[in-house]
Amino acid sequence: MTRQLIDEVMAEAHGRMLGDGIWYPDLREVLDRAADWEGWYDAWTSVGDRYERLGEEALARGWRVSAGEYLWRASMHYHYAQFLYFRFPDKREAGQRKKEALYRRAAPLLVPPAERIEIAIDDTSIPAYLRLPASSGRFPCAILIGGLESTKEESFGFENLLLRRGVATLAFDGPGQGEMWFRRKMQPDFERYTSRVLDHLETRTEIDAARIGVLGRSLGGYYSARSAAFEPRLRCCVCWGCIYRIPDFWDTVHRATQDGFAYVSGADSLTEAQRKMAMIDLTGIASRITCPLYIFHGKQDWLIPVEEAYKLRDAAIHARQTIVIPEDAIHCGHNISERIRTPMADWLAHQLGAQ
Amino acid sequence: MTRQLIDEVMAEAHGRMLGDGIWYPDLREVLDRAADWEGWYDAWTSVGDRYERLGEEALARGWRVSAGEYLWRASMHYHYAQFLYFRFPDKREAGQRKKEALYRRAAPLLVPPAERIEIAIDDTSIPAYLRLPASSGRFPCAILIGGLESTKEESFGFENLLLRRGVATLAFDGPGQGEMWFRRKMQPDFERYTSRVLDHLETRTEIDAARIGVLGRSLGGYYSARSAAFEPRLRCCVCWGCIYRIPDFWDTVHRATQDGFAYVSGADSLTEAQRKMAMIDLTGIASRITCPLYIFHGKQDWLIPVEEAYKLRDAAIHARQTIVIPEDAIHCGHNISERIRTPMADWLAHQLGAQ
Repeated sequence: MTRQLIDEVMAEAHGRMLGDGIWYPDLREVLDRAADWEGWYDAWTSVGDRYERLGEEALARGWRVSAGEYLWRASMHYHYAQFLYFRFPDKREAGQRKKEALYRRAAPLLVPPAERIEIAIDDTSIPAYLRLPASSGRFPCAILIGGLESTKEESFGFENLLLRRGVATLAFDGPGQGEMWFRRKMQPDFERYTSRVLDHLETRTEIDAARIGVLGRSLGGYYSARSAAFEPRLRCCVCWGCIYRIPDFWDTVHRATQDGFAYVSGADSLTEAQRKMAMIDLTGIASRITCPLYIFHGKQDWLIPVEEAYKLRDAAIHARQTIVIPEDAIHCGHNISERIRTPMADWLAHQLGAQ
Repeated sequence: MTRQLIDEVMAEAHGRMLGDGIWYPDLREVLDRAADWEGWYDAWTSVGDRYERLGEEALARGWRVSAGEYLWRASMHYHYAQFLYFRFPDKREAGQRKKEALYRRAAPLLVPPAERIEIAIDDTSIPAYLRLPASSGRFPCAILIGGLESTKEESFGFENLLLRRGVATLAFDGPGQGEMWFRRKMQPDFERYTSRVLDHLETRTEIDAARIGVLGRSLGGYYSARSAAFEPRLRCCVCWGCIYRIPDFWDTVHRATQDGFAYVSGADSLTEAQRKMAMIDLTGIASRITCPLYIFHGKQDWLIPVEEAYKLRDAAIHARQTIVIPEDAIHCGHNISERIRTPMADWLAHQLGAQ
């Protein structure tokens, strides 16, 4: 990819990076260092490595809070190093592995800590992190689902929003995502994974199983809608970005995103990816959603057309809907990030009786 | 002031604004709106007013956490509206008042909450906020002092760093600062105010009075050094930016900062301000500091020359010193904000036995 193409794709993502907690001077440093797409990975990891060293030093001194924050930050830098890096599969995989490893070390040090969980499914398991609010009691819980290019490690900031509002969080990687990609590529039946997560949460005494909701971002918005359609135990559902039916707009999908779909589904070519992506379709499914449904989409989204949100709205006829489609929002509202995340967290907390 | 002069002064402050919690898209919106210095105030307050409305709506719905965060954010926007706005005294004062009022409403809603305190001194009182970590027990405490253009409302983000590390925080306005400016202009004896704050903390059962430290930023670095020199109850001292003796560099002080000194000291002219600022002098005082001393200064600081830090270092001969003078740091390290704040919070927490 050329410098111009990086800029095009990445400018879209700056708000997301900042919103998810990347520190502005670090983003500037990375953009200044990355002369071209080849240099992108190393620009991110060199800053990430600096944070890893700071994390090690803090650990050696017994400064656990800083160690957790530095290691999480290092993990995020590895996340964005491998972000959309499908054409360099070795670095892509190395970046994923390192991101996971850094977050795994950070997890027990975070405030509040993240408990690592493996939830059995078929012949493998779902990697997940559970975090509980600092207070005591039985908590409602939000299940958080990432998208095409986000994983359970990236929701740390949004988790903090929910935790401050008294909602526990469980973030996991489903098929095709993060750690799970190494075990299982994208599947049509994502809802099965959400159901196993619910099974696990029902065994936890810290969680009130009658108050569990789900939120998914970008492609995760499709997964959360699908989970809510098939899983009556979910009390509410947030689609933070909507996809109703990929075949309707595949031809307009940005090339970097098409590459992404090919990668996560294990397709050998874009033609095969396009064929596989026919599985992403809520036709006949959205009408099964009966819990309260929060539909968010950016009116200016040029990655996924706003029509996808309208289709979901029109099809989910049995759901009480809250529809938020800001005029000035790009994909997932990343350009006005904090402004759209807080109301979403409030809505979830309210639906789950936490406020 | 011309657009060029705003840009010159404000570019210096962008990192500070972001570091203190201003959200990047909001900063961009303000800079785009403020065509000139006359428009600066209204650009900030219009975004601030939006957050105040969001705070009201959240309160009406009972969403207390969001209400607190929105009202705090509105308060910060009013803070930066009146920032350096000495040539428009009506707006300056209106902005200060509104900032205080917004923060006062936010205080009980913050996580953890901020308790409003008035500490008697002479015929008036010192306005302060105390925050306690979420856990239980007797906490060490850091007293936080602002500078020429910062007040107790602005340390919220730094307080959160300390609170996560188990350190309580008490932020107050001294003479010439924020709310206190309306009651009493800048005085030579700032240490008396710190001592009254210590008297108060000794009465609090939540605080371990044997573990209280002080931190001051920019001009506050001078105040904290001075407080540590005169107050043996302080267990450690952070100078987050140093001033040793203003007469040594008054002639090189930026015009906007000279205006600031005139304003906070109630001087009628720059000549009178210069005369009054002769009171800012640690000669014969710095050698009285016996507690551990953390000296921070930006090597690239063009507001206060790095020589001020060297003079403090050389004069504080009875203090065990930790000296941090990054090559790439501007005033108070605001361009590399998070990178320098975390170690400072760690040092404080460590000195106070919190980690």
